Amino acid sequence: MNNFQYYNPTKVVFGEGEFGSLGAEVKALGDTALLIKQEGPLEEMGVYAEAVRSMEEAGIRVHVLEYITSNPKLSKIREGIAIAKEKKINVIVSVGGGSAIDAGKAIAIGAPCKDDVWDFFRREKMVTEALPMVAVSTISATGAETSCHVVVTNDEEADAAKWQKWALHDAHAFPDTAIIDPRLLASVPKRLTAAGMADTISHVIEGYFDGVPDNPVSDRIGEGIVMTVIENERVLDHPDDLKARAALSWAATLAMSGLQDCGRSNAGFPAHWIQHAVGALTDSSHGEGLAVINPAWLEFVNQKHPEKFVQFAERVFGLERTAGMSDVEYGQAGIDALKAVFGRWGLPSALGELGVTEGMIPDIIQGVLDSPETYVFEEEMLERVLRRCM
Amino acid sequence: MNNFQYYNPTKVVFGEGEFGSLGAEVKALGDTALLIKQEGPLEEMGVYAEAVRSMEEAGIRVHVLEYITSNPKLSKIREGIAIAKEKKINVIVSVGGGSAIDAGKAIAIGAPCKDDVWDFFRREKMVTEALPMVAVSTISATGAETSCHVVVTNDEEADAAKWQKWALHDAHAFPDTAIIDPRLLASVPKRLTAAGMADTISHVIEGYFDGVPDNPVSDRIGEGIVMTVIENERVLDHPDDLKARAALSWAATLAMSGLQDCGRSNAGFPAHWIQHAVGALTDSSHGEGLAVINPAWLEFVNQKHPEKFVQFAERVFGLERTAGMSDVEYGQAGIDALKAVFGRWGLPSALGELGVTEGMIPDIIQGVLDSPETYVFEEEMLERVLRRCM
Repeated sequence: MNNFQYYNPTKVVFGEGEFGSLGAEVKALGDTALLIKQEGPLEEMGVYAEAVRSMEEAGIRVHVLEYITSNPKLSKIREGIAIAKEKKINVIVSVGGGSAIDAGKAIAIGAPCKDDVWDFFRREKMVTEALPMVAVSTISATGAETSCHVVVTNDEEADAAKWQKWALHDAHAFPDTAIIDPRLLASVPKRLTAAGMADTISHVIEGYFDGVPDNPVSDRIGEGIVMTVIENERVLDHPDDLKARAALSWAATLAMSGLQDCGRSNAGFPAHWIQHAVGALTDSSHGEGLAVINPAWLEFVNQKHPEKFVQFAERVFGLERTAGMSDVEYGQAGIDALKAVFGRWGLPSALGELGVTEGMIPDIIQGVLDSPETYVFEEEMLERVLRRCM
Repeated sequence: MNNFQYYNPTKVVFGEGEFGSLGAEVKALGDTALLIKQEGPLEEMGVYAEAVRSMEEAGIRVHVLEYITSNPKLSKIREGIAIAKEKKINVIVSVGGGSAIDAGKAIAIGAPCKDDVWDFFRREKMVTEALPMVAVSTISATGAETSCHVVVTNDEEADAAKWQKWALHDAHAFPDTAIIDPRLLASVPKRLTAAGMADTISHVIEGYFDGVPDNPVSDRIGEGIVMTVIENERVLDHPDDLKARAALSWAATLAMSGLQDCGRSNAGFPAHWIQHAVGALTDSSHGEGLAVINPAWLEFVNQKHPEKFVQFAERVFGLERTAGMSDVEYGQAGIDALKAVFGRWGLPSALGELGVTEGMIPDIIQGVLDSPETYVFEEEMLERVLRRCM
């Protein structure tokens, strides 16, 4: 267990019907809101009309930024920052998935300062302030609603192959309030739900297999989150099972809140950084990419450090260990069990299914190596992992 | 799973050697500190000298309140509030166990206002502000270092039998910063360590058996905390095992942080309120009292609602379930396993060992019923539980 600092000041308002408290929660922070909308079905479902009504009933002036796409783009965020400055916005309200929430965070950080917001992602400037923010999560996946992470794709280059999907990690990015209402989640389609479940599991296991021993509390919490996700997979056939939606959404939130990373190496999220490079080039779903990349990555780690994989196979999957099975073999059985879970959820098992071609591999590797993240990649291992994913 | 709000803004600074960062952490909050000292060996061990040195090196003026006793008394807290007002204290620094930290919280709440601090405990007034506070935890037990709870004993009456040990629960009571350094814990003697371990387990299981179904994440976290405590019991024979101390202290902190109570009924902590009445009359150790009261209480609950006890027996203790065993019998086996754990830690198994006599039972019952807590006790059940504890 390493020394650590843990800090997460986001207030969580959780449960069926809590979306109705949006106006009151926003009012506690400001009176002129920028509502960040996400592309997709939420508008048609009336979610945004309900958000506006709730805020206006609370006496809030509401301005709108339409429609954030997945892998939110810098150009759109600059548009939001311009609106925030012009309209004297004093509270940001994102209603959507990780894309809308991350766009909201970037706007909250960019609005109060004269610097260009991308400077913070390039580590050229330090964040010193941000507008207050309420995040309403409409999909269980990224945990963005209580995290200090922001991921943005810089789309300045005309050639999309040169786009950079980079992350910023800063305490100013914590939303002040997160509203999680299982009723909003019931309409998430099966494929996206499964991708979100894989994303949640990835957020645990990218840190869990860090090689740092003696971290029993974080281990138990991480294992509990993974088990909860798997034990609630019935949601894929019963999308309106609100008990399962509630369990999955709280699991997703805590997976990325920093809690179960306490005492870990925090070397970085290697599979995530690879996925970011893939996502920048293919605009493919984050969780689907992770479902392919993460097991492939873990197979390499297990070869060298199987101890934790043994614990994972035993505690999470309760796998029987036959006589003579080595640690590596038993650890691999746990990874295989995880791949089987992803398979029965209908997730892809190869990057080709997400539009990645062999020819893209050098660009993906370059994209990973260009990223300003701290994780130290070996180029050769990167290539081997990517080829295993094809 | 019930709807809930979760909020815990305390920054945790955790790990071996982190006590050395006290000066820097305090400096971030103020420049004139009131150091709250606890009775016991910390002074002789040089812990307070180190605290003063660290703060003075950071340029902080340090005033001192000596020595808080267990079950901290209102008279002492009023003394601290008077010093805080006179010396224009702008940051409270508690270094000690739950008693020093709770005294610090009460002083932080009482110092900025003209009202008498007991008014907040009587629910006569609402807390509206508090001085910033740093809590350095020197024993793993109450989790006070990141909780919003404050427990104080009103010692105004000359007759100690009439003292009230009451709790206040308010967001202003969260310390701004908690420092947890396993090195400070290595000197905690066996008996106190065991009492703290029982306290940690109590903080989980008082909420866990709430009868609210479908709360898998909180269940897994709670079970993980209990398992971590039991799996690190080696500390009782190896007090300077800092890995075990670290695991136990993080478990104790999270048990009381509000995290694993998310989605629970939050009806209250019945065994705690009984122990508070016992503690007010006997000045006995909190954790030791809980080790007796909690199993006795749970045996009554198991008779009516054994479902969760079945889960506990299976997941925490992995008990075999023989053919024909009823839910109540299997649930009781889990409670028996917990009692066996407390027994091998050397904890008392009857309240008589803590100085409680049969004649005190009516006063204890009255003390519980007089408490302003929300839990609804049946007087008859209270008496049956207490008689079972004798």
